[in-house]
Amino acid sequence: MEEAKGLVKHVLLAKFKDGTPPDKIEELIRGYANLVSLIDPMKSFHWGTDVSVENLHEGFTHVFESTFESVEGIAEYIAHPAHVEFANVFLAALDKVIVIDYKPTQVKV
Amino acid sequence: MEEAKGLVKHVLLAKFKDGTPPDKIEELIRGYANLVSLIDPMKSFHWGTDVSVENLHEGFTHVFESTFESVEGIAEYIAHPAHVEFANVFLAALDKVIVIDYKPTQVKV
Repeated sequence: MEEAKGLVKHVLLAKFKDGTPPDKIEELIRGYANLVSLIDPMKSFHWGTDVSVENLHEGFTHVFESTFESVEGIAEYIAHPAHVEFANVFLAALDKVIVIDYKPTQVKV
Repeated sequence: MEEAKGLVKHVLLAKFKDGTPPDKIEELIRGYANLVSLIDPMKSFHWGTDVSVENLHEGFTHVFESTFESVEGIAEYIAHPAHVEFANVFLAALDKVIVIDYKPTQVKV
């Protein structure tokens, strides 16, 4: 099984609080994306809403995936003042959140 | 906000049942990866274990990310006999699971 050297994905699943206005959600997504330009170790950002049909999403409605070059880069990101300021506002708007980091690995079959 | 045309990510978070032997987990991961060669709309597969430090992973220990060209491709995958057979064995080994599909979208900032 081959690990992509150094690449670490930071995946956040979110359910916004009921009644959060769509324009507030869009503002938060733009704020999240803007962190790429503010925090050097954060290399990319993608997001999307749940389109699954298996009904195993446990109420989560949004996925946010960002990419870092190392676990240390994620630690630097977490401690960065721009992230701390954003996270305080973002997490306050969420009903549920899961954050998991992993090093994407392929399997030779 | 720009959506990657047609690309859909299928993300599964898992916690294996306590006591599942490591070689059983490895066998299941190889079985999951092998679906890429059996089910045409499944285009890629990566996995990894949680390396997060924020303690927001809610007990999930593994991430499995596969890529499809469309939502219809995921539906075809879900219904494919090779997936059904694998999923029955795989899900039986899990204590917790979340599955969410999304179209990765970038934000112009």
